[in-house]
Amino acid sequence: MLHVHDLFTPSVQHALDLVGIFVFAISGALLAVRKNFDVFGIAVLAEVTALGGGLFRDLIIGAVPPAAFTDLGYFLMPLIATVLVFFLHPEVERTQAAVNVFDAAGLGLFCVTGTTKAYDYGLGLTSSAALGLATAVGGGVLRDVLANEVPSLLRWDRDLYAVPAIVGATMVVLCIRFDVLNGFTSGAAVITAFALRLLAMRYHWRAPRAWNRRSSAREEDAQKATAQ
Amino acid sequence: MLHVHDLFTPSVQHALDLVGIFVFAISGALLAVRKNFDVFGIAVLAEVTALGGGLFRDLIIGAVPPAAFTDLGYFLMPLIATVLVFFLHPEVERTQAAVNVFDAAGLGLFCVTGTTKAYDYGLGLTSSAALGLATAVGGGVLRDVLANEVPSLLRWDRDLYAVPAIVGATMVVLCIRFDVLNGFTSGAAVITAFALRLLAMRYHWRAPRAWNRRSSAREEDAQKATAQ
Amino acid sequence: MLHVHDLFTPSVQHALDLVGIFVFAISGALLAVRKNFDVFGIAVLAEVTALGGGLFRDLIIGAVPPAAFTDLGYFLMPLIATVLVFFLHPEVERTQAAVNVFDAAGLGLFCVTGTTKAYDYGLGLTSSAALGLATAVGGGVLRDVLANEVPSLLRWDRDLYAVPAIVGATMVVLCIRFDVLNGFTSGAAVITAFALRLLAMRYHWRAPRAWNRRSSAREEDAQKATAQ
Repeated sequence: MLHVHDLFTPSVQHALDLVGIFVFAISGALLAVRKNFDVFGIAVLAEVTALGGGLFRDLIIGAVPPAAFTDLGYFLMPLIATVLVFFLHPEVERTQAAVNVFDAAGLGLFCVTGTTKAYDYGLGLTSSAALGLATAVGGGVLRDVLANEVPSLLRWDRDLYAVPAIVGATMVVLCIRFDVLNGFTSGAAVITAFALRLLAMRYHWRAPRAWNRRSSAREEDAQKATAQ
Repeated sequence: MLHVHDLFTPSVQHALDLVGIFVFAISGALLAVRKNFDVFGIAVLAEVTALGGGLFRDLIIGAVPPAAFTDLGYFLMPLIATVLVFFLHPEVERTQAAVNVFDAAGLGLFCVTGTTKAYDYGLGLTSSAALGLATAVGGGVLRDVLANEVPSLLRWDRDLYAVPAIVGATMVVLCIRFDVLNGFTSGAAVITAFALRLLAMRYHWRAPRAWNRRSSAREEDAQKATAQ
Repeated sequence: MLHVHDLFTPSVQHALDLVGIFVFAISGALLAVRKNFDVFGIAVLAEVTALGGGLFRDLIIGAVPPAAFTDLGYFLMPLIATVLVFFLHPEVERTQAAVNVFDAAGLGLFCVTGTTKAYDYGLGLTSSAALGLATAVGGGVLRDVLANEVPSLLRWDRDLYAVPAIVGATMVVLCIRFDVLNGFTSGAAVITAFALRLLAMRYHWRAPRAWNRRSSAREEDAQKATAQ
């Protein structure tokens, strides 16, 4: 079995994972504060947001018990985020821009490590990329479902979130396909996804809604303009 | 191990699965358009609706990685449905009656194949039927949860959906119990569930709500009638 | 492997499990009636509430198929609760206090058995406690998500629910750590969690919301008082 996730040294890989988990946990904890949850609600939403995507991936590939339940650091990181947000949430919200940058880093990192781990466990290239995407966005979807909101991943009026992860995951499987996956190309995939997400936020890139919905909306606008 | 799902030839079975996945994906994609999701939201909801039930079944019986992640056709079918609905959704909605017929076919098919696969993996008869039901309705429940709606499966004001699947799954386990499960009886279970769902839609069959809730509503009606 | 769940005799353990499942099912069925679901919606919500936590635990530790699908009693108990609530829901709601007591008993029981089973399957002490907590509260969270409500576990305006389960699970892992886990200490953990939940309901103990949110609210109150 090709252990393609020996791309980074284990300790670097682990440190990167912890950073990704931490920033995702911050985003969960902040939503919990906005929804007026109590301190346990904040902790639950932080844990679910940070670990949900990886948990789903590990259940699918049969890696049980999932890393979230075997690595104590993975479990403690969201609790640290909870304490931080509990006491300092106005300060953390004021640094929302910084949080968004970290979240983009987590997105880039998780789509690459998720794809790599899925391939390691024997999934095909397309399935690995799909599961990498699910790893990166799954926690955020669970967060929004628990907070009883429409997942921001699905909403039209949010800046592109899936596309950067799809690009990152696709780069990884192309590298695997052409046998050039290594620490360098892998890092390039992380950085590409990260940069694309930053650009999407900066320039408010949106994905299109269904075709005729837009056309009919445009027609209505045209009719209104004529009527005036 | 009795491989009762060798009922149909593998290629027929696979073709039927793909049809079921496709029609469920259409229903997910249409809901996404109505909820004003972007194109990625449409694709996610199509995938989840089409593959969610089978994914749940495979996790429960320990068939990992689930078929949804090993069979490329299963993954691509919802993407085709997404493209179709993206460009043609007014036409697809106009054929809502046709979509409902296909959805009923998917329901019939999935409750039978779900029950059969669960039994193959060693579950008891009752559990197999329960998991067959979950396979058939699980995707739709996930679809509604992600769209932040009360699952239509649970709602009182929707035509019977669970009962046809329960009948189909029960027919399968009775056939297993009396050792008469074959391509013919299995097909009969699919067609029975399919026909029951069509009849439920045609005649707006509903399931009752809790006992006293209805009685008190009737009393109120009676009081109103007296008052007039 | 230390089978710490041989604490109680198997038949006592099983009877306690069935009681816990039954009372959780009642709480799910009652919410379904309040949400105006039909009889199948009531049954689905009863099953999900009663079995969801244990199902999640079993998927995480790799105990597939989960007990919910291998033990017929686990599956039938929620159906009995459904029939009961369907016909007698005003009477059951009138005994809401009694239901709450049973629900507290289920909480105490499930956090202890969940923690023990997780440890049996090789999880660490912290992870076992976390999974014991998830077993105890998971069904209720799923119930609220399916009913399209914010999980009451997360809400600030509900009496403490997580803390009693955390205390119970922590007592179990401390007993394991100091090698004094037996039927007696295990029962003490159940009773402690049970009693804490009863006290939380009796005295409306709440968990705090985020720090500054409370301060600013207090400031607003102070300003209002000054303005008058």
